[in-house]
Amino acid sequence: MHELRRDILLGRWIAVLSESKEPSEYYLPPDKGIAERSCVLCSGRERETPSEITSIRRPGTLPNTPGWWVRAIPSFKPVFQVEGDLGRRGVGIYDRMNSIGANEILIESPEHNVKPEDMGLEQMIRVITLYRDRIADLNKDLRLRYILIFKNSKLDPDETFFHPTSSLVATPVIPKRIKDELENAKQYYDYKERCIFCDIIREELRVGDRVILETRNFLCFCPYSSAFPFESWIIPKRHSCDFHEISNEEIEDMGFTLMSVLKNLRGLFKVEPPFNYFIHTAPNRVPRRNHWHTLGEDFHWHIEIIPRLIRRSGFEWGSGFFILTTSPEKAAKYLREVG
Amino acid sequence: MHELRRDILLGRWIAVLSESKEPSEYYLPPDKGIAERSCVLCSGRERETPSEITSIRRPGTLPNTPGWWVRAIPSFKPVFQVEGDLGRRGVGIYDRMNSIGANEILIESPEHNVKPEDMGLEQMIRVITLYRDRIADLNKDLRLRYILIFKNSKLDPDETFFHPTSSLVATPVIPKRIKDELENAKQYYDYKERCIFCDIIREELRVGDRVILETRNFLCFCPYSSAFPFESWIIPKRHSCDFHEISNEEIEDMGFTLMSVLKNLRGLFKVEPPFNYFIHTAPNRVPRRNHWHTLGEDFHWHIEIIPRLIRRSGFEWGSGFFILTTSPEKAAKYLREVG
Repeated sequence: MHELRRDILLGRWIAVLSESKEPSEYYLPPDKGIAERSCVLCSGRERETPSEITSIRRPGTLPNTPGWWVRAIPSFKPVFQVEGDLGRRGVGIYDRMNSIGANEILIESPEHNVKPEDMGLEQMIRVITLYRDRIADLNKDLRLRYILIFKNSKLDPDETFFHPTSSLVATPVIPKRIKDELENAKQYYDYKERCIFCDIIREELRVGDRVILETRNFLCFCPYSSAFPFESWIIPKRHSCDFHEISNEEIEDMGFTLMSVLKNLRGLFKVEPPFNYFIHTAPNRVPRRNHWHTLGEDFHWHIEIIPRLIRRSGFEWGSGFFILTTSPEKAAKYLREVG
Repeated sequence: MHELRRDILLGRWIAVLSESKEPSEYYLPPDKGIAERSCVLCSGRERETPSEITSIRRPGTLPNTPGWWVRAIPSFKPVFQVEGDLGRRGVGIYDRMNSIGANEILIESPEHNVKPEDMGLEQMIRVITLYRDRIADLNKDLRLRYILIFKNSKLDPDETFFHPTSSLVATPVIPKRIKDELENAKQYYDYKERCIFCDIIREELRVGDRVILETRNFLCFCPYSSAFPFESWIIPKRHSCDFHEISNEEIEDMGFTLMSVLKNLRGLFKVEPPFNYFIHTAPNRVPRRNHWHTLGEDFHWHIEIIPRLIRRSGFEWGSGFFILTTSPEKAAKYLREVG
């Protein structure tokens, strides 16, 4: 019989099918090959992009010139814009506000044709350092409530660049998916006086069959109630609600772990599957009474990697009840053993 | 500037882009034509399906023989099964239960090549009557907490049949998406002592620019904070939490309204766009204290129609913050004027 599993973080249920699909049973679009050899994000064309916000670059080189390893620039077509006031107000019985926030492109490499898992640890450390610096910077803007860093790889509708990039979106409200996670983590903390994520780490290490990889500072595993087949999380063992408080040692370890999982995913599916990853960190602090805004004892930052192997059915959109076609235990075994 | 809108029912935010895409700017897969002329769901092959649960048929004809207009059968590959106990228990820190429930195929016509908007009002009335009867029947099973009726049209991953069908899934828990809606509606009721849906109806009629169609018993409109471009809702003007308490007059009116919207969608996109619709009705009553379980004053059944014109981006999956590429006002104007 199929099994229903409750997502301890989101309160939703997932149906895990009893006969797990193997990696080869998912349809993957073939690699298109690389249509172009360079683009506006490549080294040498810095003047064609919006002026850089920050970069990590060779000492002595100037902003908006070659010599950078990683570079943050504003989006070409931002959905959220930095200038303006929030203008939150009622419209009849509804609510609206201006689209204030930030939209940045985080260029992961001066090279056009490199994948994150192949860029080398030193470069990956720079990418993660850029993530940290951008969040730490935007954290000071009191109009912003949340900063999400994520990566789209292949297949996303608005993917404009083949150049390796991540994205940053800062929003003036806490997005629903994050709010659900925060609220459930807070409920658990209120009840147990323990961090739910720390408990998940202990439980996954105890059971072991959903673990993909354990390093000195991180655990990588397939969550018990994954919503996507081969979904994988990377979570620091040290309790910390803010991603931007990551230590240098942790950055290196996270880079190694992230590259390992992405390499294993590619190994498993022969071609790199379309995927996204997100960093879920605590929201920006504002002077409020909700205690996670001030303490952060009940949240624990982590990365969620979701391969985009399936299309959601009408049932799933209409109910929020997801069907999982490969069990997390099988997925973790595949991802462990391919490495 | 783009505009952020709060979903009054789900608490989530939607970014409505300032430059709305026109219908012709969405990519639609071409109609494949009909690969087959008949299938196992057609009239004459009743013995090849699981035995029918119920049907509406010509007087004097026998179950599992021709003569039916609409017919409910168990799924060929059910995810939820009727027999067994719930077996809900902890697994370490997590929760699981058996996949108890129901999975039914609601065959909308004995004809293989008919679309809902072309089947004629008389046949559509039978389809809706079948919806009502199945929900009313399963409502009595105390293990079941929710019954969702929905339709997949084109493009869904597990679409096995080209024959016109709807689906019924009954689950032993209230799915997350429904729970969010119920909880927000309850909060609103607790605060205002009014039904949020009744207020939405009044507001939409007052403003008018999101209305597609108004009939004696129903309002059809594009919601203020639609998550999908050209999303359309059909809602009864009479307050009622249970779809299965629909009157015969309302069934006829709902059939007319649903067919009109689907016809307009097809007219707008030249080919029929892939779409889903769901009936959101109140959960099965159980003897609990939560007042919507017993009163139902704070819920109001309705149909949500979502054309599947876009693919979700990594940002949307990671945040639950959706980007709307055609405003509801523009969408409603298109849908009103094409008719």
